[in-house]
Amino acid sequence: METNISYGRLFSFTCAVFERIGCSPADAALAAKVLLMADLRGVDSHGVARLSGYVRLWEAGRIDAAPNIHIVHQTPSTAVVDGGSGLGMVVAPYAMQLAIDKAKQVGTGWVSVQNSNHFGIAAAHAMMALPHDMIGIALTNASPLVAPTFSTERLLGTNPICVAIPAGNEPPFVADMATTTAANGKLEILQRKNLEAPAGWIQDKEGKISTNPHELKSGGALLPLGGDREHGSHKGYALGAIVDILSAVLSGANYGPWVPPFVSFLPVGDDLPGKGIGHFFGAMRVDAFRPAGDFKKHMDQWIHRFRTAIPVVGQEKVLIPGDPEREMEKQRMQTGIPLLKPVLEDLQYLAERFECAL
Amino acid sequence: METNISYGRLFSFTCAVFERIGCSPADAALAAKVLLMADLRGVDSHGVARLSGYVRLWEAGRIDAAPNIHIVHQTPSTAVVDGGSGLGMVVAPYAMQLAIDKAKQVGTGWVSVQNSNHFGIAAAHAMMALPHDMIGIALTNASPLVAPTFSTERLLGTNPICVAIPAGNEPPFVADMATTTAANGKLEILQRKNLEAPAGWIQDKEGKISTNPHELKSGGALLPLGGDREHGSHKGYALGAIVDILSAVLSGANYGPWVPPFVSFLPVGDDLPGKGIGHFFGAMRVDAFRPAGDFKKHMDQWIHRFRTAIPVVGQEKVLIPGDPEREMEKQRMQTGIPLLKPVLEDLQYLAERFECAL
Repeated sequence: METNISYGRLFSFTCAVFERIGCSPADAALAAKVLLMADLRGVDSHGVARLSGYVRLWEAGRIDAAPNIHIVHQTPSTAVVDGGSGLGMVVAPYAMQLAIDKAKQVGTGWVSVQNSNHFGIAAAHAMMALPHDMIGIALTNASPLVAPTFSTERLLGTNPICVAIPAGNEPPFVADMATTTAANGKLEILQRKNLEAPAGWIQDKEGKISTNPHELKSGGALLPLGGDREHGSHKGYALGAIVDILSAVLSGANYGPWVPPFVSFLPVGDDLPGKGIGHFFGAMRVDAFRPAGDFKKHMDQWIHRFRTAIPVVGQEKVLIPGDPEREMEKQRMQTGIPLLKPVLEDLQYLAERFECAL
Repeated sequence: METNISYGRLFSFTCAVFERIGCSPADAALAAKVLLMADLRGVDSHGVARLSGYVRLWEAGRIDAAPNIHIVHQTPSTAVVDGGSGLGMVVAPYAMQLAIDKAKQVGTGWVSVQNSNHFGIAAAHAMMALPHDMIGIALTNASPLVAPTFSTERLLGTNPICVAIPAGNEPPFVADMATTTAANGKLEILQRKNLEAPAGWIQDKEGKISTNPHELKSGGALLPLGGDREHGSHKGYALGAIVDILSAVLSGANYGPWVPPFVSFLPVGDDLPGKGIGHFFGAMRVDAFRPAGDFKKHMDQWIHRFRTAIPVVGQEKVLIPGDPEREMEKQRMQTGIPLLKPVLEDLQYLAERFECAL
């Protein structure tokens, strides 16, 4: 059972909720835009379904709706930003804009962020670079759900990597991926449908292969991209580790198993090594390397060659990263965003509580 | 049948061969050091076994032993370098040093390279950043052997990513990985032993799963990390694509299916979109983000926590990226480097031809 709600209606509602918890109108609009980009692009697990989760973190005192976001240290091409415990959807655009501003000056900009919260989808931030003819990069760490290769313990988040690259006549290349075999949102879909997970997505608490999508509740873990050692899970583990280190060890945020949980009912550890969760952003001006026109012409050729490759039987064509999300966005802007019953009920609860029209 | 040869003896011999084809003594020593780092670290496919391949590329006029390596364009934090068709093992250290020099000035340095050749193992270059308390990054594209998700065509190389991160008392974190499920060198081992490959490593020419390690000779392809769509191969494909674009579309090198083959007997296409193969290097000064001492203390804590995680039954411990290679290097410095009979014969042929003592 799904109900479609138009983007405009959902945007106004989400803005209103963020304002009610104390965000400025500008911050509320920014956070709503970033959050709903997930719904538009089909990443339903990271969008408005999490709105009540953010509200609960605010209630628990873990999110400051009027944060003091500030630069801790900087050089011409780098900075560390303290997010002031703000909404990640507000902190991240601030930090990405700083990276873009630095790239305008010296070719590239790199910003590591401490004391933040979950920032929605990484693509929302990396894609900010595109209108400036820059390559955008966005990474974040997240609550520990992933077991490194050979580990029974969950030490990493799904730690996504997004790289957005401008093209000319073709739409941009936008790869946005969890560094696990499957994102947690895909497990949630299987849980709702009561289906088994493919081998290689999860392990049980002892580290044995499991196909039970509820395994994480019993101490199991998501697996790094690759699934097992024979299929390169040590590479997925290394990628998730790199994201963790650039986002948190470099900024002074919490890392590895110390990353605070997204859900407010789980306790935050004491004796933490850092502040909040961490992100990492990069912006590289294309014309700091070669003329932007040349680059875009060759990106168009790259994209065209890959898109027209001979597909395997049963598949229509080879996709360019970002194609499915862009098509979904186009569709959902027209048809509205489908909300599952429990998500809709959650929003209705927020509507009543904060007296906002849904 | 393997014969162990000491590192010192192999180094002198390799230097001599590079000098005989026209490298300066300094370039020959540099190229030999980089090439043999692969053998020392256990990446036998990328080391001295390829020496005769480089010689054949020089004979075919595709490698200039006295290259005019120069900067094409630069900003305070970026550069494009033309490798002058030189040995990648000489071009890459030049470009990585330039990235390090820029990082000293403005916090980070990023160098994309055109007109180069294969550069050995990526770790050899990324690790140059470590003594400077910098994070090092090295990427390269390579001859097309990999089919993107849903493609029957080979459009990408094994396009490795290396990230080297300094620590304090712990040894550094060094992740160096092909963006495929398995590196081509692992297939070569199966070929020699006449063993089947695990499902998920390769596909046949129609894109069906294959376990035949000789499949590439019949139009088959290596698979991106993940193996198939259900296990996230679109992520491995995206990673390989990002490496290709940063290394070649950004620099003006050849990309995708146009990357020149490593073997000299295969023709180089005409109407190429760029020059030679491409690399990409990055250096980030740790103290451009936070004091180096703080960073290293937390890296030590990160490494210690992961290394002491409770392992799955049957595994001794959780590894930190770079651990196996470092242990191998220590061992082979003592015992020598084991060479398979065909590799040894290849070197003996070079010894006779160039009148160098092996």
